[in-house]
Amino acid sequence: MLRIAVIGAGRIGHVHAKTIASHPDATLELVCDPVGDAAEKLAALYGARAAKQTDDIFTDPNIDAVIIGSPTPLHIPHLLAAAKAGKAVLCEKPIALDMADVTAVESELDAITTPVMFGFNRRFDPSFAAIHKAVGDGKVGRLEQLTIISRDPAAPPIEYIKVSGGIFRDMTIHDFDMARFFLGDITEVFAAGQVLDPAIGAAGDFDAAVVTLKAASGAVATIINNRHCASGYDQRLEAAGDEGALFADNIRPTTVRFSSATQTDAQDPYLDFFLERYADAYRLELSAFIEAVENGTKPPTGIDDAIKALRLAEAATDSARSGKPVTLA
Amino acid sequence: MLRIAVIGAGRIGHVHAKTIASHPDATLELVCDPVGDAAEKLAALYGARAAKQTDDIFTDPNIDAVIIGSPTPLHIPHLLAAAKAGKAVLCEKPIALDMADVTAVESELDAITTPVMFGFNRRFDPSFAAIHKAVGDGKVGRLEQLTIISRDPAAPPIEYIKVSGGIFRDMTIHDFDMARFFLGDITEVFAAGQVLDPAIGAAGDFDAAVVTLKAASGAVATIINNRHCASGYDQRLEAAGDEGALFADNIRPTTVRFSSATQTDAQDPYLDFFLERYADAYRLELSAFIEAVENGTKPPTGIDDAIKALRLAEAATDSARSGKPVTLA
Amino acid sequence: MLRIAVIGAGRIGHVHAKTIASHPDATLELVCDPVGDAAEKLAALYGARAAKQTDDIFTDPNIDAVIIGSPTPLHIPHLLAAAKAGKAVLCEKPIALDMADVTAVESELDAITTPVMFGFNRRFDPSFAAIHKAVGDGKVGRLEQLTIISRDPAAPPIEYIKVSGGIFRDMTIHDFDMARFFLGDITEVFAAGQVLDPAIGAAGDFDAAVVTLKAASGAVATIINNRHCASGYDQRLEAAGDEGALFADNIRPTTVRFSSATQTDAQDPYLDFFLERYADAYRLELSAFIEAVENGTKPPTGIDDAIKALRLAEAATDSARSGKPVTLA
Amino acid sequence: MLRIAVIGAGRIGHVHAKTIASHPDATLELVCDPVGDAAEKLAALYGARAAKQTDDIFTDPNIDAVIIGSPTPLHIPHLLAAAKAGKAVLCEKPIALDMADVTAVESELDAITTPVMFGFNRRFDPSFAAIHKAVGDGKVGRLEQLTIISRDPAAPPIEYIKVSGGIFRDMTIHDFDMARFFLGDITEVFAAGQVLDPAIGAAGDFDAAVVTLKAASGAVATIINNRHCASGYDQRLEAAGDEGALFADNIRPTTVRFSSATQTDAQDPYLDFFLERYADAYRLELSAFIEAVENGTKPPTGIDDAIKALRLAEAATDSARSGKPVTLA
Repeated sequence: MLRIAVIGAGRIGHVHAKTIASHPDATLELVCDPVGDAAEKLAALYGARAAKQTDDIFTDPNIDAVIIGSPTPLHIPHLLAAAKAGKAVLCEKPIALDMADVTAVESELDAITTPVMFGFNRRFDPSFAAIHKAVGDGKVGRLEQLTIISRDPAAPPIEYIKVSGGIFRDMTIHDFDMARFFLGDITEVFAAGQVLDPAIGAAGDFDAAVVTLKAASGAVATIINNRHCASGYDQRLEAAGDEGALFADNIRPTTVRFSSATQTDAQDPYLDFFLERYADAYRLELSAFIEAVENGTKPPTGIDDAIKALRLAEAATDSARSGKPVTLA
Repeated sequence: MLRIAVIGAGRIGHVHAKTIASHPDATLELVCDPVGDAAEKLAALYGARAAKQTDDIFTDPNIDAVIIGSPTPLHIPHLLAAAKAGKAVLCEKPIALDMADVTAVESELDAITTPVMFGFNRRFDPSFAAIHKAVGDGKVGRLEQLTIISRDPAAPPIEYIKVSGGIFRDMTIHDFDMARFFLGDITEVFAAGQVLDPAIGAAGDFDAAVVTLKAASGAVATIINNRHCASGYDQRLEAAGDEGALFADNIRPTTVRFSSATQTDAQDPYLDFFLERYADAYRLELSAFIEAVENGTKPPTGIDDAIKALRLAEAATDSARSGKPVTLA
Repeated sequence: MLRIAVIGAGRIGHVHAKTIASHPDATLELVCDPVGDAAEKLAALYGARAAKQTDDIFTDPNIDAVIIGSPTPLHIPHLLAAAKAGKAVLCEKPIALDMADVTAVESELDAITTPVMFGFNRRFDPSFAAIHKAVGDGKVGRLEQLTIISRDPAAPPIEYIKVSGGIFRDMTIHDFDMARFFLGDITEVFAAGQVLDPAIGAAGDFDAAVVTLKAASGAVATIINNRHCASGYDQRLEAAGDEGALFADNIRPTTVRFSSATQTDAQDPYLDFFLERYADAYRLELSAFIEAVENGTKPPTGIDDAIKALRLAEAATDSARSGKPVTLA
Repeated sequence: MLRIAVIGAGRIGHVHAKTIASHPDATLELVCDPVGDAAEKLAALYGARAAKQTDDIFTDPNIDAVIIGSPTPLHIPHLLAAAKAGKAVLCEKPIALDMADVTAVESELDAITTPVMFGFNRRFDPSFAAIHKAVGDGKVGRLEQLTIISRDPAAPPIEYIKVSGGIFRDMTIHDFDMARFFLGDITEVFAAGQVLDPAIGAAGDFDAAVVTLKAASGAVATIINNRHCASGYDQRLEAAGDEGALFADNIRPTTVRFSSATQTDAQDPYLDFFLERYADAYRLELSAFIEAVENGTKPPTGIDDAIKALRLAEAATDSARSGKPVTLA
């Protein structure tokens, strides 16, 4: 039974708290958030303790592991402090808004000895994971072209956009990790950014993008992003090889199809939003974390994955702004 | 090159004339219809000759084969006359409206030596034929349950209904043949007739029905019929065995799917009506007829199939009227 | 917070215990089972108390409600005792193996004043419930034909078959309730039973069946059952009306499709078995029960539904054995 | 009745000859090919005349229109000669292998007054055309992202590759036209070329590519190409707007789905190859050509479309070779 504290009582903190509470091998010990009574409210839902200071976590011998869901600029400080305190860490993406912040603490990150996993939850989605396994088993032969379609139901508030680090760090980061999950090292990034909502453009960001990634293997990945999708949270993946292809479709709340005089087999809109769509993925991510911590094995995603995804996000940002492809070392 | 005459310039006559005209191994020689200028009009479309009297066909040495698309009561007379004249015959279903009409000429039918095929076109539909072949190849193991869903887009005029012989002889006859195609001999029929449109009930007919057929093999077939379907011509089949199942879906004019805020993947209504839906089937049926005639082989459907389908239609009519199952000898 | 005891620590008892334990508005107080340490083992999983005697439940003031998952012959005794003790009851189907057992206690059943709900869980399946609502909202116009396909992945052990009351009471009972859910009163039943596995035939039962139900409304329902399905738990429903149709498809563990040189878009086998397939339905059933108990409203399914489903099962058994349709009063 | 001559008795010449022969409003007058008895053989299939010299066409008053299916370097000479002779022209894509060849005859092309249409047959595919119409009707709101997946079943012989002008001129040219059909003017092209088969790389070409096109409208199109697809001819399109999305799927020879113990709903491989997949499109393209010629209206695709598609192909070639995006004037 892993005793876990959650840092950050925001949207993602709620996801993790709920996932822990219903997990047979974990208990939610404490929720920490400095803002108002956010921690208390979330903790109360699951009978956990609440704290305003993260120090309360790090010095608490009854806490085995920490899930970091604080604002991105605090990810590295919380990660380093938790690790120093000997806690296992599951940290949300991205690791930072700026590679410079990572580079500045490189030796400290290298020195971490406690288990650290990064929250690339989509790797644990049953459909994506099944495709990853099937590709690994050779079902499609050599993987040649990967297509990831990832559209949010609606853009977040403009205030969030402004501090988000931009679409590539905030949203595409998941798709970058997914591309690496399937293709390994990426050598070149070309990003075509789109400004569909002028307010988002005025904030210096893009709200849609098509990213081309060349992999060292010779494969090419395409990521199609949009901050908006009329039909819900559009999350698809297609892995095409020389002997076959695998596809993951959207998920709907029911299997109902409706036919009438004007159309046939109309289905429900897609599950909306990530809490529902990736509920299984969050649960399986937590299981993988618990398993790694308890067995002393390497977590399936680590600091290196977080850094490489961030590098791709920075490269894509540069590419979209400059209009030129960016080569990765 | 098979030189063919078509008897009957109605709806089904047009289907056959068009199919012959575009078939590489057949020519439309003549169209025969006693009513007005129907034969001339149809013949003119394809540069064929027209006649009012069927005798013109039977004495014409330039005609190898006859397709009989006359009103059902004339099927047997035309069939016998054509056979006597040494013509190969492709006759539309049903063979007659009444088994008594068949029994009365049993010895004459038995004496026929020219090739005779009956127009159970659905056996030649590429999807149904592929399923039939796969079942024969053992892909689903032992066939246990067959489900046929067959709904017309809209009921024919009440005048047609009145002379049609009833839903089982007129519409279900195709499904009876399909059940026999897959299951062989049928031993018992139970038909639940429905009267949804009171006008059709007043005409002494049903406009929907669910028919259960027990096969000698132990399998059971279910036929679900309706004279009306909001989404078009609903033509599906499901063959379930102990090792798997095969399904044939409806056909649509395009593959387009439409997703919006309220629904996803809505498709077109089904192809409507049998001319479009079974265009391939009519073409392949004609090919099978030509092949049998030219090679001197037995046509894939014969008088025996026509009689057995009619017997099932009569049994279903009796069952629906009496409310009791009917056992077949 | 409804405090619930579960009677019966078998397969269905486990389903209910787990569903209660993870439900925010319910607590599992006690598990009762006379056999060995079954109750203790199940209770221990969720920190509940265990008992061997049902009396311990009925006299316990800390128990608000009872879920009856005992063997079918005990359903009525447990139901009556629980009701007498003032407990709300959620009872598994069927209410009894024999209508005579129900008739014998008719006045006692009528006298029950505590809330009693019967576990027709499929009514709460999100897809079936959505279709039911849409039909009620008039989306398909007048409902004309209902098709229920319900195939288990594999037959239970022959020992179970022998005491099950037969396929219609044990398996089709769910489909009978579903037919009533959509169509209301049924006036006639015709059942074509099939014996595919001779061992099941030797036990006096059928292992597949096609049932035709005529509804008072003029609609007809078809139920296609099989104790075996190669691809998993086959659970589909189709509601066809004069203005449209609604379909519920099978559920798979992922959305993955696989295409290769020989086939395209192959998907996973169906979820297997009812614990997985109807996990949501059990949860929503429990919510409906809690809501009815706490609000003092009538539960969505009651003793009357249980009796009527059993009557249909008996009629179908008679029909399959006699080969004749059975009319219901 | 349009009297048509076909230049070129190769693969595409056969397509056009067959399409003309079965078209109610056209006759195949003559087939012209200088090589061996190619013209005679093709002409004989449809009872047309054969010629070795194109002059025979241009001076023949009984020929109204010419379909040019000669090798690409002859497209412009044949086009100019036919136009000079007053014939209407339907010319295959691409207009030339090199923009310089077009520029050299710019004034002559500008001076053409007879109807000239270019064979971008996919615009006439029923599914793509329906999506184009629906987008024009506003069904998806503002079109934001277009995705075209276009994979051939297998690469052509290396000898063909060497004279093809490269993947972008030979294969992607259709997709460039489709992008223009939906998005209008394209302002920037970035192409990531892939060499999967070293023999094709050695021939100086790519055999797969992902192309990003920025449209003047702000929309972005993605084209995913591969000379090989295990499952057949993979031809899909997705048009995503702010209010919805439209999808065109692959076409299969039947609607059959197969379920077994290991998988469910496996379908046939895709139709293979363009003759089958785009049979309807070629027929409808011909109808559009005939209609424009007979009504004196502007053909739906013209020289300008041919030139713009070629420019995109050249830009993509430059981009893939240089690794940089190419801006279009």
